[in-house]
Amino acid sequence: MKNVNKRTILLSLLLVFCMMLNGFSQEYRTETDLLGDIKVPKDAYYGAQAARAMENFHISGQYVNDYPDFIKAWGMVKLACARANTEAGKMKPEILKPIEEACQELIAGNFLDQFKIDLYQGGAGTSTNMNVNEVLANIALEKSGQAKGNYKKISPNDHLNMSQSTNDTYPSSLKLGMLLHNDRLIKELNELKKSFRKLGHENIDIVKMGRTEFQDAVPMTVGQEFHSFAAMLEWDIANIEHASQSLMVLNMGGTAIGTGLNTPKGYDKYVIEHLRKISGYDVVNADDLIAATSCLQGFVVYSSALKTLATTLSKISNDLINLSSGPRNGLFEINLPARQPGSSIMPGKVNPVIPELMAFVSYRVMGNDVTVNIAASDGDLQLNAYEPVVGLTIFESQKLLTNTIKTFRVQCVNGITVNKDVHKRNLETTIGIVTALNPVLGHHVGDELAKEAKATGKGILELVREKKLLTEEQIKVLLSPKNMTGLDKSKYENK
Amino acid sequence: MKNVNKRTILLSLLLVFCMMLNGFSQEYRTETDLLGDIKVPKDAYYGAQAARAMENFHISGQYVNDYPDFIKAWGMVKLACARANTEAGKMKPEILKPIEEACQELIAGNFLDQFKIDLYQGGAGTSTNMNVNEVLANIALEKSGQAKGNYKKISPNDHLNMSQSTNDTYPSSLKLGMLLHNDRLIKELNELKKSFRKLGHENIDIVKMGRTEFQDAVPMTVGQEFHSFAAMLEWDIANIEHASQSLMVLNMGGTAIGTGLNTPKGYDKYVIEHLRKISGYDVVNADDLIAATSCLQGFVVYSSALKTLATTLSKISNDLINLSSGPRNGLFEINLPARQPGSSIMPGKVNPVIPELMAFVSYRVMGNDVTVNIAASDGDLQLNAYEPVVGLTIFESQKLLTNTIKTFRVQCVNGITVNKDVHKRNLETTIGIVTALNPVLGHHVGDELAKEAKATGKGILELVREKKLLTEEQIKVLLSPKNMTGLDKSKYENK
Amino acid sequence: MKNVNKRTILLSLLLVFCMMLNGFSQEYRTETDLLGDIKVPKDAYYGAQAARAMENFHISGQYVNDYPDFIKAWGMVKLACARANTEAGKMKPEILKPIEEACQELIAGNFLDQFKIDLYQGGAGTSTNMNVNEVLANIALEKSGQAKGNYKKISPNDHLNMSQSTNDTYPSSLKLGMLLHNDRLIKELNELKKSFRKLGHENIDIVKMGRTEFQDAVPMTVGQEFHSFAAMLEWDIANIEHASQSLMVLNMGGTAIGTGLNTPKGYDKYVIEHLRKISGYDVVNADDLIAATSCLQGFVVYSSALKTLATTLSKISNDLINLSSGPRNGLFEINLPARQPGSSIMPGKVNPVIPELMAFVSYRVMGNDVTVNIAASDGDLQLNAYEPVVGLTIFESQKLLTNTIKTFRVQCVNGITVNKDVHKRNLETTIGIVTALNPVLGHHVGDELAKEAKATGKGILELVREKKLLTEEQIKVLLSPKNMTGLDKSKYENK
Amino acid sequence: MKNVNKRTILLSLLLVFCMMLNGFSQEYRTETDLLGDIKVPKDAYYGAQAARAMENFHISGQYVNDYPDFIKAWGMVKLACARANTEAGKMKPEILKPIEEACQELIAGNFLDQFKIDLYQGGAGTSTNMNVNEVLANIALEKSGQAKGNYKKISPNDHLNMSQSTNDTYPSSLKLGMLLHNDRLIKELNELKKSFRKLGHENIDIVKMGRTEFQDAVPMTVGQEFHSFAAMLEWDIANIEHASQSLMVLNMGGTAIGTGLNTPKGYDKYVIEHLRKISGYDVVNADDLIAATSCLQGFVVYSSALKTLATTLSKISNDLINLSSGPRNGLFEINLPARQPGSSIMPGKVNPVIPELMAFVSYRVMGNDVTVNIAASDGDLQLNAYEPVVGLTIFESQKLLTNTIKTFRVQCVNGITVNKDVHKRNLETTIGIVTALNPVLGHHVGDELAKEAKATGKGILELVREKKLLTEEQIKVLLSPKNMTGLDKSKYENK
Repeated sequence: MKNVNKRTILLSLLLVFCMMLNGFSQEYRTETDLLGDIKVPKDAYYGAQAARAMENFHISGQYVNDYPDFIKAWGMVKLACARANTEAGKMKPEILKPIEEACQELIAGNFLDQFKIDLYQGGAGTSTNMNVNEVLANIALEKSGQAKGNYKKISPNDHLNMSQSTNDTYPSSLKLGMLLHNDRLIKELNELKKSFRKLGHENIDIVKMGRTEFQDAVPMTVGQEFHSFAAMLEWDIANIEHASQSLMVLNMGGTAIGTGLNTPKGYDKYVIEHLRKISGYDVVNADDLIAATSCLQGFVVYSSALKTLATTLSKISNDLINLSSGPRNGLFEINLPARQPGSSIMPGKVNPVIPELMAFVSYRVMGNDVTVNIAASDGDLQLNAYEPVVGLTIFESQKLLTNTIKTFRVQCVNGITVNKDVHKRNLETTIGIVTALNPVLGHHVGDELAKEAKATGKGILELVREKKLLTEEQIKVLLSPKNMTGLDKSKYENK
Repeated sequence: MKNVNKRTILLSLLLVFCMMLNGFSQEYRTETDLLGDIKVPKDAYYGAQAARAMENFHISGQYVNDYPDFIKAWGMVKLACARANTEAGKMKPEILKPIEEACQELIAGNFLDQFKIDLYQGGAGTSTNMNVNEVLANIALEKSGQAKGNYKKISPNDHLNMSQSTNDTYPSSLKLGMLLHNDRLIKELNELKKSFRKLGHENIDIVKMGRTEFQDAVPMTVGQEFHSFAAMLEWDIANIEHASQSLMVLNMGGTAIGTGLNTPKGYDKYVIEHLRKISGYDVVNADDLIAATSCLQGFVVYSSALKTLATTLSKISNDLINLSSGPRNGLFEINLPARQPGSSIMPGKVNPVIPELMAFVSYRVMGNDVTVNIAASDGDLQLNAYEPVVGLTIFESQKLLTNTIKTFRVQCVNGITVNKDVHKRNLETTIGIVTALNPVLGHHVGDELAKEAKATGKGILELVREKKLLTEEQIKVLLSPKNMTGLDKSKYENK
Repeated sequence: MKNVNKRTILLSLLLVFCMMLNGFSQEYRTETDLLGDIKVPKDAYYGAQAARAMENFHISGQYVNDYPDFIKAWGMVKLACARANTEAGKMKPEILKPIEEACQELIAGNFLDQFKIDLYQGGAGTSTNMNVNEVLANIALEKSGQAKGNYKKISPNDHLNMSQSTNDTYPSSLKLGMLLHNDRLIKELNELKKSFRKLGHENIDIVKMGRTEFQDAVPMTVGQEFHSFAAMLEWDIANIEHASQSLMVLNMGGTAIGTGLNTPKGYDKYVIEHLRKISGYDVVNADDLIAATSCLQGFVVYSSALKTLATTLSKISNDLINLSSGPRNGLFEINLPARQPGSSIMPGKVNPVIPELMAFVSYRVMGNDVTVNIAASDGDLQLNAYEPVVGLTIFESQKLLTNTIKTFRVQCVNGITVNKDVHKRNLETTIGIVTALNPVLGHHVGDELAKEAKATGKGILELVREKKLLTEEQIKVLLSPKNMTGLDKSKYENK
Repeated sequence: MKNVNKRTILLSLLLVFCMMLNGFSQEYRTETDLLGDIKVPKDAYYGAQAARAMENFHISGQYVNDYPDFIKAWGMVKLACARANTEAGKMKPEILKPIEEACQELIAGNFLDQFKIDLYQGGAGTSTNMNVNEVLANIALEKSGQAKGNYKKISPNDHLNMSQSTNDTYPSSLKLGMLLHNDRLIKELNELKKSFRKLGHENIDIVKMGRTEFQDAVPMTVGQEFHSFAAMLEWDIANIEHASQSLMVLNMGGTAIGTGLNTPKGYDKYVIEHLRKISGYDVVNADDLIAATSCLQGFVVYSSALKTLATTLSKISNDLINLSSGPRNGLFEINLPARQPGSSIMPGKVNPVIPELMAFVSYRVMGNDVTVNIAASDGDLQLNAYEPVVGLTIFESQKLLTNTIKTFRVQCVNGITVNKDVHKRNLETTIGIVTALNPVLGHHVGDELAKEAKATGKGILELVREKKLLTEEQIKVLLSPKNMTGLDKSKYENK
């Protein structure tokens, strides 16, 4: 061990030395914008305005590049714009090529480190748009053999932002980024649904007591319960997929306020056509670009679908926590896999940590939706300047949901086992099954049985057998899953 | 005057006397339920359980019959159930007829006074369901010439609740009631939209300065702005209409927990078919009735659409308040009709009271959505017992929105006038139009003009004329609405 | 029965006749305000502006006089203003007297029917303030032998609103009204707390298994659990009482924007002194009246305390629902009194309807707080015009909480009984008590016992007895409530 | 440049090589917990359970060590526990010393990198508590010359967690961490307040028109307006300071469920005494530790204070955005310092990016409060397992507020300038000042003047001068700041 430690120390020292050396050698170029000169690290692909934003905003420790889908979306949007500008005759073809290559880099997920500006930034996203314009301009410059920062031939403003404004490209890139992330969320939801379907199939015949208002109600099967979770998730998937269509309505070509000022003829159609091809999504432009610039409805609709999912996931999680309660003084119908040791004080205790995590992420998503609403309701006149908070809040909700749903499935749902003996004992002692015996014994006898069961602590079945009210054969028939639970397995086939 | 007052006093005394007489003559019948005997006013159509709920719940002073659509919906649901039970052979045809007549009474809006139980009630809606069952049973009894309270032939439990449970009829009636109210909401939204379209058409050529982040931006027309409000509302209408489909997914026939216990064969299909015919809505049953009993997703989806609308209405209202600010130290671009005298302290002051009302109703709807979310996320095991709060909260949001949107249209939007002179002066002094002059004067000259305008307080046009940079003809062309604002009137035709 | 019905019909006809007669004889007087003439019922005490508001606002069906405390508060505020104006020499003493008498009528709870204007009204409360001014003016006129509507001597604007503005009297009256209602809320909370203390004392020695994360944890007593609910409520009472101090900070004398325009010298001090005497609350004026006119902080602070209480009440309610789950397939530790028959489908089922009601009122209060926040955050420039929605939302929360807490106590908590046998059985079978045996048996033996208990389904005590690891005497000592639960009864004395 | 680049490339290669070398040499030790063996990097101070949490939770990319105050708080809590255990005779003095040294390291802010576990973790904080226990144990072991991972003498469970449970130390450390961060928030709020006071003093004599409901109202001074912002902040500071007292109520010594199981006599008092000394905060224990374990009231109270502040900051930010609107078609009363170039499309445009940021952070904090509420309302039975989401959400709100308030002050408020000429022009043209002239000209003449001003577009003063209604001397007196605005400079002295 000693040798290793020595080596580690030696290497660390070397590392520090390298870094210092590199630090000392940090050189800068000077860029200029409306507010004057600013130093930018010589090797940086970003430029003056991103540098200014890095200086201005030290708020959250969360950065634009925490959401790679967002950067990728910008690459697609800027590529579509460049092609549309060329098609409309405004951009020279020789400039298009390096810009295309630059955009493809972003689409491929490269240069992420150039977008380390705080997600919390004012100005309706201008800093992010300019960060993108600068990085793309410098990549394009480099690809055409020119020096970074030398914006004469390819300029962040004149070329990368041509026929554009932050007010159309920023919300459009947000939406495209959310669509990209949404695909992964839907994928994870489908996987989770399948896991519940599997549990449903495996336990389809195990009869259990259903509960309403936490009181014993009537029988169902364990499989039916798991299938019901899957069904809820399917409804949420459908709801989210529909809501995601609201993210496909963009406002490209509207520029500053939706009037399309300074866009060439045909540009608004070309840009959407290109974006559909590049992204693979059926994006369209809003039928009123002025409305689309100040109204964040599409984001609100999508955020609403996420919080609707959150109410479902919270419900399912809490049910799993309830069903696995015990082991002795709870329902103890199912076991969740142990993922963490319990308390140091209480040996052997294993807690439902993963469903708890799923629930608390749901609460976070529900709170996030409120943030989105308030920001959306405060869009003044021709622009809603609160798009950045809407964007980062929805991105966060997507990320938390996607990652936690996966964790929930892999570390919890897939390992659930059912305590058949508990269900058997419950059915024998329950009073609730009296309802299922009514058709044969009649309501009055049922009433008497229920009363006696309550008074004596005996089970209904126990009493039926004691009093020989039914033969074992009759009991078997009446208590067949199909009879008691309305179970129709065909419903679950192919699910 | 004296004579009149005397007469009034005399009549009042007579009135009080009549009421006392009636009060003293108040007679009761005794009804019995699981908790024992209870006195019910002899003339009442409601019965034991409604009486118990009236005793138990003195919470809000808001009653079930504040929402007549809800009672109407119950009439439809119970009618469909009775017919389906008959079709399935479980209900005798001779009982069906009086029940049908009773249900038609509710559908016609009669007997509303029999549903005066507090909207705030526990128990997942059991009190309301039993209230309906009792009233219908007694109407049916009366229609078949029998005494109220004599439930042998037609019983609230055995006949009116046949093949049903509160857990399927209550949420289904809530949804149907919301659909009925939604029709009126959509109608009002369409009217409001039309009013904005009208304002849009009337003012389509008046050029004004658009603003982003409250800073002067680039030109648009007043008509474009009003049309953009109409467009936002159209999007919300589409969104609400889609969301209302989630209200069309019912869980009829599921009974207690969705397993369909104690329903006859075929009943679940018959009941939906009848309900479609009776209501005129394309209602369907959920593909998993167990899931549908405990998952309130449909309500959450619809509530989300209402709060999305609220964010739009808040935005529009605040814009109107901003645009009408002044008269001297504000934007003063439009005038709202005066609806109430302003302050006693400030003569002549007229405030934007109606848009304020629209905004504050929006804030209420946004808060209501949070209530719905929390309630929906807390559905335990086989039932979400918080349906009543979800129901009353959404009903309230619908009512507040429908009534306020009408008030907003009639008392505010329809009377809006535009201050053309303000717009004219703004355009002459603005710096923002420099952007539109760029194509002719070039970016550099534009920069210089902007700088000089800022320094001297002069308008861009003033400077252009001073310096004779453009002819009056050029100014006219460059500042034509079409050129500056991208105005395309054909877009608004037929809108 | 027939005779009675006949009589009823006869009386009803007579009633209708009387009402028609009265209706026909309805006479009007004409009043005038800045917007012109308007007809007011001759007998009405309200005047032109209230009549206008009644015409304008048909929104919610909820009226200002749904909150009598609010009207009472207005009486106090206007009385203080009149006295302060007189003291400052601005109001003539001969006018003061009838105004004082009029204000005393409102304080006494009379004339409530004169305030039937919709709670949903725009204009920062102007309609309500003018409604009050008009009613008080007409009562005062009548008391001085003059005709209603003849405002020359006593005018709603000149005298009742003297040195005032809606912008100072409206929020001040809201706060005073809330303080009045708060007293009743605190009283009910104290009663509820006492009920839990009583349950705590009665069950202090019954040992039960505590649960964390719904898993069996370590022992406690039933009494400790009930006492813990009482403690939480005490903390909420303290929190609400502190928050209510924020309602005691008024902005009287600020008039329109807090600068005190048109108030006589000394008025601002006199008015607060009078209001302290009249109301009995230690109200003060804010140290910056301009800030106080546009900042709704006091309301937000108080609403926050209500929603904090809501989170506690939701927790307690859900615990009671959990603890009473069963009877066979749940925890079944306690019984809640039956208040409503359960399902028609499931005989004998009694549901926890009252705690459910308590929980859903809590969710409503939590949503209401969001409405308050949004409205408060949107106060523009010198006034927050959204005071009416803040007011009605908080009033609603107060009312729902006060009434439901009483219902919760009387109909649920006071009737709770404990299933001692369930606790006894739980303790015998639990694994959790192994922790308490550790000090004697050691951690290792404890581990082995826990493992064997899990594998065999036996209880720890059962195994201990089987293996004769401890004498009965030792068991008795180790399992004494004091030992296992840290019970210290002296802590609860005098509580 | 070429040379530099070469060197950079060379150094980078070297760096990568070093890192690879180090990576290859990564060695592990094996640790064991209830779930079995797990590999831990040899040099790590954390142990098995933290390693497991790192594996289990890949959710947010936000880590426990993003909040150094939280780690510091843990150091204080564990130090207090160790000392209390020693004082109670349970911990051997020779073990105390290395543990004390270890805790001091955390308090000093060292070893932060050892806490890189996701903030989103289930289990009521067990992973974080065990992470702390493991790191402290290993530091202590190292300090006593022993190998990391060799827990015989100093064990994470037996010694670092002695007389403790996650359920008492986790919420206590959260609260202490929040108190630490709260100090910095209060400091920044005070600085912001001072900046507004400074603006208030500087502009105390500049008269401007106040606005209510966005309509011109009556005069005030610019200084009064800025002072009013300062006053609001002072009220929030007082409110937060009071709310922070709720964070000082801990539940130390309660262990698993508040019964104090397995704590030595006197421990609960010793631990609080030590913690007071170590932290410098007047922390106390709750009077009911069982209630304190499951009730998150203290967190809700504190979060409420943050969201109350958010409503104020949103109001102030929006006012600044409104007041700086223009430059030509807005209020343009003040100028905010330019921090970022505006739109590429609109030259010279500077946007109010910093107040926008302040507003959107406020919206985030308001949404976060909803998350806290939901989590707090869902505390089941003896524990609220949702403490981690409550913790991370409040920490985030604190961080966002603290950093943004500083940015707001330094980059916006401190640079605000006032456009005196705008105010002068506004006063000359306003109709609102007619109210101030009433005492001399009388209400009737005022009415006539207002009417004529509206009709002709002239200002009140202009008309007064035209008509020679007042002498210049009278005008000067009537329009003196003191007269019109009730300005009392003495109120602002020493503020």
